[in-house]
Amino acid sequence: MATGILKIGVDAMGGDYAPQAVVLGALQAVEQLPDDVRIVLFGDEAAIREIASKEGATSDLFDIVPTTEVITMSDHPAQAFSKKPDSSLSVGFGYLKAGKIDGFASAGNTGAMLVGSMYSVKAIEGIIRPTISSHIPVVSGGTALLLDVGLNVDCKPDVLDQYGWLGSIYAEKVLGIPKPRVALLNIGEEKEKGNLATKAAYEIMEGSPRYNFVGNVEGKHIFTGEVADVIVCDGFVGNIVLKQAESMYDIALRLGMPVDNPFYRGMNYEHIGGTPVLGVNSVVTVGHGRSTPLAIRNMILQTERTARSGFVSQIKALLA
Amino acid sequence: MATGILKIGVDAMGGDYAPQAVVLGALQAVEQLPDDVRIVLFGDEAAIREIASKEGATSDLFDIVPTTEVITMSDHPAQAFSKKPDSSLSVGFGYLKAGKIDGFASAGNTGAMLVGSMYSVKAIEGIIRPTISSHIPVVSGGTALLLDVGLNVDCKPDVLDQYGWLGSIYAEKVLGIPKPRVALLNIGEEKEKGNLATKAAYEIMEGSPRYNFVGNVEGKHIFTGEVADVIVCDGFVGNIVLKQAESMYDIALRLGMPVDNPFYRGMNYEHIGGTPVLGVNSVVTVGHGRSTPLAIRNMILQTERTARSGFVSQIKALLA
Repeated sequence: MATGILKIGVDAMGGDYAPQAVVLGALQAVEQLPDDVRIVLFGDEAAIREIASKEGATSDLFDIVPTTEVITMSDHPAQAFSKKPDSSLSVGFGYLKAGKIDGFASAGNTGAMLVGSMYSVKAIEGIIRPTISSHIPVVSGGTALLLDVGLNVDCKPDVLDQYGWLGSIYAEKVLGIPKPRVALLNIGEEKEKGNLATKAAYEIMEGSPRYNFVGNVEGKHIFTGEVADVIVCDGFVGNIVLKQAESMYDIALRLGMPVDNPFYRGMNYEHIGGTPVLGVNSVVTVGHGRSTPLAIRNMILQTERTARSGFVSQIKALLA
Repeated sequence: MATGILKIGVDAMGGDYAPQAVVLGALQAVEQLPDDVRIVLFGDEAAIREIASKEGATSDLFDIVPTTEVITMSDHPAQAFSKKPDSSLSVGFGYLKAGKIDGFASAGNTGAMLVGSMYSVKAIEGIIRPTISSHIPVVSGGTALLLDVGLNVDCKPDVLDQYGWLGSIYAEKVLGIPKPRVALLNIGEEKEKGNLATKAAYEIMEGSPRYNFVGNVEGKHIFTGEVADVIVCDGFVGNIVLKQAESMYDIALRLGMPVDNPFYRGMNYEHIGGTPVLGVNSVVTVGHGRSTPLAIRNMILQTERTARSGFVSQIKALLA
């Protein structure tokens, strides 16, 4: 933020409905963002200008960095960057690494986003495994954080402990929860319950001076908000929990149940915004593949909030 | 069923509202059961007769085996049987082992029920790990089977394969699903997705001649019924999935959402009946601790259906 302007990079070509949905979402975000924020779109300049123009918007509402290639859902994540150096993702991560933007968001190829995060901005020194997390709604009101939601499927206990710490700082700085209650997802509340990994993780986590560990929580506690603000699990379990929750929203819709309450609105992926990548040297948000303009708008707002929060610099300072 | 009468044993002292809820549930079950079934209640004879009499029911509607002790929720499962040999659970399992009853159900101490299953009727020879499962509703209509739901938290791949087989036979014989579709719960549909255990399990399961393996399913598929009838996972994941689902029912109630559709009725534990223990030498059902009379009724009906289905003898025959 050297210029006094916070710059949020957005992959205009990422997602099932790109670039249309991305440009429309960016226009919606512009209306919500304060004056010291500038959106930087990476992608097909002519297409972006045309979509904006059709909306009656001047395209000087955001910066455009023209790129000529697109990493698609079928591209191999690890090879995509070298094969498509002028793709919106490659160029975007280049800008992020060079500090020309303060955060980067895409609803494109998730694997490529993770590879890009690891190989361009890289993990913060001292972070064993960067992780992906998800905001989840809680029925008591507000938002909790679930992590890992799919990146590291076999987690060692010290990794779970670090998730507790990363999640606690994120919940405090970005979600605005003072002294977040951090819990370990398990099959019983008692300390001795669980599988080999959670039993060992509990031993480390209960002694941690870095966060407010409140013990084990069960599956029934995840969405109540009564016990925990940060719920730690390995990426296998977290991915299944998250997708199960998403399906409950879809099922409620299918059954014609009313979903016009804050909890169910929060279960709608369009409102969740995106999946923050935690533990890397910048702010990266992975959006949902089928992002609508509303989902893109929320992905951008979340990226801005995280970039402004100083989350990454606090992690770095504490590890230095 | 040597006498031509199918005898279903029920622990009258098990559950938060026992014996009241159990006796009332048994009376409800009697009305539904065919004439060739007899319920055998284990517990405090005077209390059972008094509850039945208050309902205007003659207590010759069921057999009573009087017992003087009760294994409570706070009793240590492994020690409870030797410490309380005249408890309703101890005597019930004794009858089950001796073949004097054809199935046994209790809403009491789950751990003690599992210990009782393993040490009295014992695992069927050839079964690596008996398992507990749960009927789950699917939005397409009907019921699927999820296993393991909490017994074996770190499962080897060959155990997951055996769950697929046990679940398939149960789904066919008890749930009446022809050629059940068996799936492995995972974080992606592709074969190479997953943690170490599921990747290895996939290799075994895809070649199994014993059941109809349809591949991986994700968390979003569990409750749709569109992909699988039997969903296999380790007990850690299954327990979290099940409790998360139960909490979604509670949350819907709390939010005042209408739950008067078949799917949400099926999410209500009272309708689920109980958790069958699969892989042991008889029919054992573990009920929910807070079972109401309705839940007890369904637990008894499920136990009767399983005993009548020949599920256990089919497993034994196939392993012989």
